[in-house]
Amino acid sequence: MKSAKIIKPTEPLTIENNDDTPSIKNNNQVLIRIDSAGICHSDLHLWEGGYHGAGGSFMKVEDRGVKFPLTPGHEIAGTIEKIDENVSQFTKGDKVLVYPWLGEGTCPACRVGEENLCDFPKTLGIYQDGGYSDHVLVPSFKYLIKIDGIDSDSSASLACSGLTAYTAVKKASPSPGENLVIIGAGGLGLMAVQISKSITNANVIMVDVDDRKLSESKRLGVDHTINSLTTDVIKGIKDITNGNGAEVVIDFVNNSKTAPRVLDMLRKRGKYVMVGLFGGELNLSLPTVPLRAFNISGAYTGKFSDLVELVELSKLGRIQSLVSKKYQLDDVNEALSDLKNGKIIGRAVFNP
Amino acid sequence: MKSAKIIKPTEPLTIENNDDTPSIKNNNQVLIRIDSAGICHSDLHLWEGGYHGAGGSFMKVEDRGVKFPLTPGHEIAGTIEKIDENVSQFTKGDKVLVYPWLGEGTCPACRVGEENLCDFPKTLGIYQDGGYSDHVLVPSFKYLIKIDGIDSDSSASLACSGLTAYTAVKKASPSPGENLVIIGAGGLGLMAVQISKSITNANVIMVDVDDRKLSESKRLGVDHTINSLTTDVIKGIKDITNGNGAEVVIDFVNNSKTAPRVLDMLRKRGKYVMVGLFGGELNLSLPTVPLRAFNISGAYTGKFSDLVELVELSKLGRIQSLVSKKYQLDDVNEALSDLKNGKIIGRAVFNP
Amino acid sequence: MKSAKIIKPTEPLTIENNDDTPSIKNNNQVLIRIDSAGICHSDLHLWEGGYHGAGGSFMKVEDRGVKFPLTPGHEIAGTIEKIDENVSQFTKGDKVLVYPWLGEGTCPACRVGEENLCDFPKTLGIYQDGGYSDHVLVPSFKYLIKIDGIDSDSSASLACSGLTAYTAVKKASPSPGENLVIIGAGGLGLMAVQISKSITNANVIMVDVDDRKLSESKRLGVDHTINSLTTDVIKGIKDITNGNGAEVVIDFVNNSKTAPRVLDMLRKRGKYVMVGLFGGELNLSLPTVPLRAFNISGAYTGKFSDLVELVELSKLGRIQSLVSKKYQLDDVNEALSDLKNGKIIGRAVFNP
Amino acid sequence: MKSAKIIKPTEPLTIENNDDTPSIKNNNQVLIRIDSAGICHSDLHLWEGGYHGAGGSFMKVEDRGVKFPLTPGHEIAGTIEKIDENVSQFTKGDKVLVYPWLGEGTCPACRVGEENLCDFPKTLGIYQDGGYSDHVLVPSFKYLIKIDGIDSDSSASLACSGLTAYTAVKKASPSPGENLVIIGAGGLGLMAVQISKSITNANVIMVDVDDRKLSESKRLGVDHTINSLTTDVIKGIKDITNGNGAEVVIDFVNNSKTAPRVLDMLRKRGKYVMVGLFGGELNLSLPTVPLRAFNISGAYTGKFSDLVELVELSKLGRIQSLVSKKYQLDDVNEALSDLKNGKIIGRAVFNP
Repeated sequence: MKSAKIIKPTEPLTIENNDDTPSIKNNNQVLIRIDSAGICHSDLHLWEGGYHGAGGSFMKVEDRGVKFPLTPGHEIAGTIEKIDENVSQFTKGDKVLVYPWLGEGTCPACRVGEENLCDFPKTLGIYQDGGYSDHVLVPSFKYLIKIDGIDSDSSASLACSGLTAYTAVKKASPSPGENLVIIGAGGLGLMAVQISKSITNANVIMVDVDDRKLSESKRLGVDHTINSLTTDVIKGIKDITNGNGAEVVIDFVNNSKTAPRVLDMLRKRGKYVMVGLFGGELNLSLPTVPLRAFNISGAYTGKFSDLVELVELSKLGRIQSLVSKKYQLDDVNEALSDLKNGKIIGRAVFNP
Repeated sequence: MKSAKIIKPTEPLTIENNDDTPSIKNNNQVLIRIDSAGICHSDLHLWEGGYHGAGGSFMKVEDRGVKFPLTPGHEIAGTIEKIDENVSQFTKGDKVLVYPWLGEGTCPACRVGEENLCDFPKTLGIYQDGGYSDHVLVPSFKYLIKIDGIDSDSSASLACSGLTAYTAVKKASPSPGENLVIIGAGGLGLMAVQISKSITNANVIMVDVDDRKLSESKRLGVDHTINSLTTDVIKGIKDITNGNGAEVVIDFVNNSKTAPRVLDMLRKRGKYVMVGLFGGELNLSLPTVPLRAFNISGAYTGKFSDLVELVELSKLGRIQSLVSKKYQLDDVNEALSDLKNGKIIGRAVFNP
Repeated sequence: MKSAKIIKPTEPLTIENNDDTPSIKNNNQVLIRIDSAGICHSDLHLWEGGYHGAGGSFMKVEDRGVKFPLTPGHEIAGTIEKIDENVSQFTKGDKVLVYPWLGEGTCPACRVGEENLCDFPKTLGIYQDGGYSDHVLVPSFKYLIKIDGIDSDSSASLACSGLTAYTAVKKASPSPGENLVIIGAGGLGLMAVQISKSITNANVIMVDVDDRKLSESKRLGVDHTINSLTTDVIKGIKDITNGNGAEVVIDFVNNSKTAPRVLDMLRKRGKYVMVGLFGGELNLSLPTVPLRAFNISGAYTGKFSDLVELVELSKLGRIQSLVSKKYQLDDVNEALSDLKNGKIIGRAVFNP
Repeated sequence: MKSAKIIKPTEPLTIENNDDTPSIKNNNQVLIRIDSAGICHSDLHLWEGGYHGAGGSFMKVEDRGVKFPLTPGHEIAGTIEKIDENVSQFTKGDKVLVYPWLGEGTCPACRVGEENLCDFPKTLGIYQDGGYSDHVLVPSFKYLIKIDGIDSDSSASLACSGLTAYTAVKKASPSPGENLVIIGAGGLGLMAVQISKSITNANVIMVDVDDRKLSESKRLGVDHTINSLTTDVIKGIKDITNGNGAEVVIDFVNNSKTAPRVLDMLRKRGKYVMVGLFGGELNLSLPTVPLRAFNISGAYTGKFSDLVELVELSKLGRIQSLVSKKYQLDDVNEALSDLKNGKIIGRAVFNP
């Protein structure tokens, strides 16, 4: 098995290539030959060893349970290579997407099918070896979704950025004609646009600082765009909403600059979904929350059954994930550097 | 009709007594002879003319649409004196509780029966004349709830403090065995204890700074009490919850001291219901909300159908509101002063 | 005011024309000048005096509280002619759709905003004078919805057939990719097709006996059609659903022929929404319901807030109601006869 | 391992005793030493080989996927004997209840945590060997719930009769003061009484034909009892409910006699939960369902997360399951005969 591993944070990843391709040891496990592995921004955090928190602090991933060496990669699409013959719904050769947000199985979140919020997460590519490899051993066939009809490259990122956007839009759940503001026209924001257009009848307003990204969101169907660098965003939203403000806001940036504005653009009874991990703080006026009956919630990836729905939407042609660049596994350090240096527009994948 | 009116903020209220008892002018209106009108802390805000906001600011109630002179009083129980004879479900002489949180009727909140969150509120005792009087004209019989079997004095406060606590507990909605922390053992907190005990099977933990209030909460059924003045409240909650933290917290204080602690006592996926209007700010770390999948919501009084349920609970003997002191309408200035000076334990009412 | 009235069931309707145009008597009432009044099948039941029930029985509408003479018409679009000047959200001249399913206001259904399910219904055009007239007095501005941008003729039927279909699709609420069977490609069924296509991502299967209607449903977006007269409908649905059966079925016919088939086409855990009032019985095997975890529910028109959403969808161009014929009020007997004799395809309206 | 096996339907069960106690083969499996195994009515169906269906038909369990020889028993409480050492939340010696309603894992029901409704069920004691034994091998630690503090005998039946009653009451979910009719004061009905009293504030009405059982239900907290053999049950319910009828009915009998009455006792908008498998048919008037906006649903055991909640209620002392008789495994044929012949009141268990 050939894998790219982080041996130690900040050091170049190492390619390991040896005879240790795992066999399946029980009737649940499945060995997947990887066709496509997405390269995600959060892989950079693993490589850097942590997150920059409030006040110049640094939160080390090793303090949160990550152990090195580690094969990163949590966006994995591939082909079933070995599976117990008694598994009735899957068979060797099936093209599948892997749900990577595995939980330990007994916490309150796992018990209601929200393994992504597990108290003791076992995520592939974070807490155990993942998809920067030619093979991955998945603990159970229950984490697989068939992707016949959609290609591996574009389906891989459904497992992370797509799923996160889907969860956020479902939490927002605007009624027909309500105003949904999406902050940030990056990969997640553009995915959220497509999802909003297919599962809601909201009036979608995109806010970003980059006119090209705003144009792209327009092409994908947003009803209004606001460049927050060149315009008064609060005024812009008030104008669009007859002075009422927006019923729901999803913030894919969620930093010290965007958050205070969100409270000003929200209508009474408004819902505010925080997604971005760019860091920072919000000085929240406490009486405002009850007086205006606000609801603020965090969205962190999503549950398995939502990924099943999202793959359905993809099969129906409602959403497309844009893969702009493809790498060989041997180019792993170049790929991560490109991502870090902003050279990748949209999504990049490994084709091992 | 005899009424106590605020002519101008901060000045003594005036008793008006003249022949202007209203008649009913259409088949919806109902004239109520008031038996009991609760005296609420928010009446003090009207008297003072506003709220103390962040950074020493003062939010004037007149800027929020309140007009003086005004008869305050939004907790009103009484007897139907005049009603259109074609109204089938109510009749002269019925003892009723009045839902005071009237909406204008056409906003999104009103359309789903949440008039308490109306964009253009018409609350009795705030935006139109209320219960510090011997009579009140209620715009429609639809806002009345029969209270046969429970006495007027104790049912009056269900319309405000009871309803707010009920809304908060329903938003919290802990599962059996989950930990519900209630912050503040005042009137609302003690009501929330009784409601939690009757509609949930949560493990209820009360936090306050006053041992006598904590004792009272214990008598009403809380499972654990923590004095946050003399103990490490975070440690206390971790001890009770096997180190996990609490699944849900309702903060009836909701100020700069309580709010930061709540985030520390919440379990991943936790729900935080903000109720108190004591003011202040919270410095919220933004990535925490998605990473820990928190939900923060504000509760502001409640909707009509919830007050119907709450009256049912009261009729079933599940909850009791404690009336500790009764005043004549003529003593209105003394009553408000007593409340302001902390001389009233529990609830006081006017019996006009 | 000129109105067409049913004086006595089965007798020709009478045109009354006199000086009694109502004035508004309180600050809630609104006088509407009618632009368009839909002609609904249920108006025929009023004219005939009742429904044909099980075993040859006849359920008289007068036994259910209807009183003659009566001006029928519950699908009403018009222009505000008189309204209290203090009503802030509407003004003279506004084009509006009227929500006709008025409730008495105090029953459990009314209390949660479902006046259409009121214990003591006051529906316009059924329990009080309705839209077969040049004017109608609406008890409150709260029952109006602005229809600027859509024309009166096509919006009128949203209030009944559109709303019923909307309620049914919301009760069905299929997940993306699930199979939704709609039985009956009449006015309601075709409306349900458009609604399904705009608020769900289901695979929609239409079942009818008429190929022309099936074609029309195809034009509006259904994914599959089955002619149940010429094909084995159960086999057809099993073929489309990989042998699983359908997750949800809405039956707009709901008679002795369609109902037994529905149970055979439903997947385990399936939802079955009954809408049609064509009568008849179903011999339901009792253990089947728990063993297959079925849910069977009835849909009867819809609530006000859903009509608001539906009007939004119409404004967004997602749904269109087809008006095929227009009558003058004087032609009321001809219009009802045409409807009875199947001469009206789609919807007919009066333009008084 | 010593087990009681059905070799062939209708023949006496055989005790097998040999050296084949299973070892655990992967890090999910757990070997349980059984302390207590409940004896359930549905075990009789396995023994008899099927169910008596409509019109004298007989539905063979082998046609539904059951294979003999089989060790029955799906109510299993025991002690962990072997478990992988890396499982963090359970350890050897833990007292546990086993969730027996295992699913295959990939169907829509399993994906949302409702394995009890799986398309390809793998239930312990029905589709694979169960609890009439001294040991059982559970496929994953995820199906275990700790029962420290409650005894094995009384917790065993929570897994079937308790869970079914819990699901039914949650589907019914009456609001405070609403009327909940429970039909059948057998094991499930009495469990439903206790559950209703602990998770709702409904007015609970028990209907049965046996005065002793009605007395027992009274002791457990029902508000009203009706003997349907000696009284007019519809009149009785109308009297209790001010002529309105009941908001919700749970039918634990669900046969040709009880079902038609339920429709007559239900209030408009009523919910009807079918649980019993006693068989028979209901002649359902089709227009009634939409006109009265009824909802009819089937409840079949329950999901894992609900069993977790139910065990919490049991630990809190809110519900008690009554074990009236205990058998040795060697007495299996006597035990099943006793059950068949109505000699067991409440629940019997094996203590192997």
